[in-house]
Amino acid sequence: MVSGPGPEALARLAEERVDHRFRGLPPEAEGLTVGELAARRLNLFTDGFTTPVLALSAERLEHNLKVMERYAARHGLAFAPHGKTSMAPQLFQRQIEHGAWGITLAVPHQVRVARAFGVRRVFLANELVDPAALRWISAQLDADEDFRFICYVDSVRGVELMDAALSGAGRPVDVVVELAAGEGARTGVRTEAECGAVADAVAGARGLRLVGVAGYEGEVPKADPERVAAWLRRLVALAVEFDKAGRFAGLDEIVVSAGGSAWFDAVADAFAAIPGLSAPVLKLLRSGAYVSHDDGHYRRLTPFNRVPEEGALEPAFRLWAQVVSRPTAEQAFLNAGKRDAAYDLDLPFAQVVRRDGAERPAEGITVTALSDQHAWLRTTAEADLRVGDWVGLGLSHPCTSFDKWVLIPVAEADGTVTDYIRTFF
Amino acid sequence: MVSGPGPEALARLAEERVDHRFRGLPPEAEGLTVGELAARRLNLFTDGFTTPVLALSAERLEHNLKVMERYAARHGLAFAPHGKTSMAPQLFQRQIEHGAWGITLAVPHQVRVARAFGVRRVFLANELVDPAALRWISAQLDADEDFRFICYVDSVRGVELMDAALSGAGRPVDVVVELAAGEGARTGVRTEAECGAVADAVAGARGLRLVGVAGYEGEVPKADPERVAAWLRRLVALAVEFDKAGRFAGLDEIVVSAGGSAWFDAVADAFAAIPGLSAPVLKLLRSGAYVSHDDGHYRRLTPFNRVPEEGALEPAFRLWAQVVSRPTAEQAFLNAGKRDAAYDLDLPFAQVVRRDGAERPAEGITVTALSDQHAWLRTTAEADLRVGDWVGLGLSHPCTSFDKWVLIPVAEADGTVTDYIRTFF
Repeated sequence: MVSGPGPEALARLAEERVDHRFRGLPPEAEGLTVGELAARRLNLFTDGFTTPVLALSAERLEHNLKVMERYAARHGLAFAPHGKTSMAPQLFQRQIEHGAWGITLAVPHQVRVARAFGVRRVFLANELVDPAALRWISAQLDADEDFRFICYVDSVRGVELMDAALSGAGRPVDVVVELAAGEGARTGVRTEAECGAVADAVAGARGLRLVGVAGYEGEVPKADPERVAAWLRRLVALAVEFDKAGRFAGLDEIVVSAGGSAWFDAVADAFAAIPGLSAPVLKLLRSGAYVSHDDGHYRRLTPFNRVPEEGALEPAFRLWAQVVSRPTAEQAFLNAGKRDAAYDLDLPFAQVVRRDGAERPAEGITVTALSDQHAWLRTTAEADLRVGDWVGLGLSHPCTSFDKWVLIPVAEADGTVTDYIRTFF
Repeated sequence: MVSGPGPEALARLAEERVDHRFRGLPPEAEGLTVGELAARRLNLFTDGFTTPVLALSAERLEHNLKVMERYAARHGLAFAPHGKTSMAPQLFQRQIEHGAWGITLAVPHQVRVARAFGVRRVFLANELVDPAALRWISAQLDADEDFRFICYVDSVRGVELMDAALSGAGRPVDVVVELAAGEGARTGVRTEAECGAVADAVAGARGLRLVGVAGYEGEVPKADPERVAAWLRRLVALAVEFDKAGRFAGLDEIVVSAGGSAWFDAVADAFAAIPGLSAPVLKLLRSGAYVSHDDGHYRRLTPFNRVPEEGALEPAFRLWAQVVSRPTAEQAFLNAGKRDAAYDLDLPFAQVVRRDGAERPAEGITVTALSDQHAWLRTTAEADLRVGDWVGLGLSHPCTSFDKWVLIPVAEADGTVTDYIRTFF
């Protein structure tokens, strides 16, 4: 599925030398290639990894990849997982190997990373009016006939800026009209009438081609199942209306896309109800957080809580940090902070304590704050915690966990590190 | 001041190839070295830089470096600016060229970065009980007699763990007893009696040498000038008491260290009152945020607000993002979010708008939220804002601004980019 520069670029990741760019690794790894280090199958707990170190569970990662592959297939959905979550080309490749149509991204720099690693199909779930970036996209389209690129439009002015930046020669840039999730929601056209005006502008732009409609139900104000379903019906109706109006004439495929990580069950239901249109419909789901899942925000919001019979995701991240200070019976401090853990949606969750090779639940231990480089722990009388102990932390929000780590060990349940995931933020 | 691997490693940064690792740069820069790109003196606004892009002001950076150099000299303070703020070896070098004694750091990985770039003196303002990291530090000390390393101790158990990890052969690791900033404060020994017990443990540890006392006044509970000054007097008194007790016998130099970016005026006052001890005193100030300063947290907290006659720091960061959506007269969205801007202490501040080469104040524009990849703007009737405009944002908190960017253009006031700062987080 990955073509062109992909396999070579991925192979080069294994040839990178371990040095000061990568933290948490054993000092003895310095000078090895990442591939050589992986081949040593070091143990995360006994072979000199230094805290803090974020690890991904090998088994849970694979589990999550399979769960969403099956979910998309079961519901007849094409899948373009949001790559902004991990920005890890190795995970993009595994997602594509697990059936993904392509990768969703948010900004042109992310497209550049994906293209450097041979990703052929990119859905940019965002407006794009930067002339320099548009010219780069256009050059990519002209240089590689296998490159498929789709992005949002949500204003007539945006369409005009895009068209002005593009030469109009070569392949046009495919766009979908973004329908806003409601009044006060994020980007997107607010009304169907305005959607028509934007589509008219696209029709008049030499450098652009209208290929469908899209939006993000995760921003529906006061979201609940009814409101989300109602908005998805609006999105589907917009596709039907555009199709009836002949706006998709001549297309091989009409794109209808939605779906973050909180409402893909509603998206599956709504997209199952898309009637026959004048061309086959690419029903594109974009959920990204599933790859690592989490122990907070997405644990609470995952649609699998509503449809447990369809599967379950497993939190794959654990941040290991060490107790460096235990000044009182009520306080302890870890050597991990804002530089290491997501803190935008929830604080980390103390899960387990390791001492002398034994692991036990982190009873009576709560993270109450993060400094830049410290976690503040409150401890009750039942907490048996000493300076030197390792504490395993669960995290909330995959996007702001991945983005704090450049190279992430992938460890099996017994601690054996089998791979290292490189991110590019 | 930078010796050994420093100049060569810094030169190699200029030889790095521009590729997908670095965002915000012109697509045409791909394949150039960073040095070649800097030599082109491109303009941030007209030469194809892509949004979002964070820029440092060349003039303000230099100004800030000079201001704190003069401040430390004026007050007889040695200066070890906290390098965790930028994690940029090029800035470490400039800080050292501007008179810094060395660099303060928070975790061993940061020491590894500093050592890779030849920093000779490191103050680790943290406890360190990780055996693998301690063995690496010890090996660094044995391999380079010019390497000076000092870290905190705050518990007898911590001292025991350190000593157990170190062989006791070779040079000992220099430590300072960390006095906590108060009850409920962060790390550090809570009472003077306990400080004595920790110092006793150090005296009995073959692998360690007690060289002074330290702490962080920024964590004084309910900090105000009186409480901070009172705590600093405790710290100085502890040094005097330890000295009288003979705990510093045989030292060439006694270390007394404090000082973040909010109270260095109080530190200067307190350290001026340190009486003569049995050896010269290295009065070590550790402020780090000054290098970029900011438009929020440190603008409010800087000691120069209290002592304006001593100078003033200037906010050196500006994040440039583009308006990609303007769905209503009250809303607009930029293509920069949590991935690009600090959000832990304040949201970004809309400062200026650029359109067609003209820059004007961002009247009537407020950032109200950040998504991962978007900024939400609220606009009043006076806001003249269109899709395609660039908005210049001020940021709050240098530490969580630097850590989102791998390569940061340094631009002069007219937009000419003269250098690129590489960070290692």
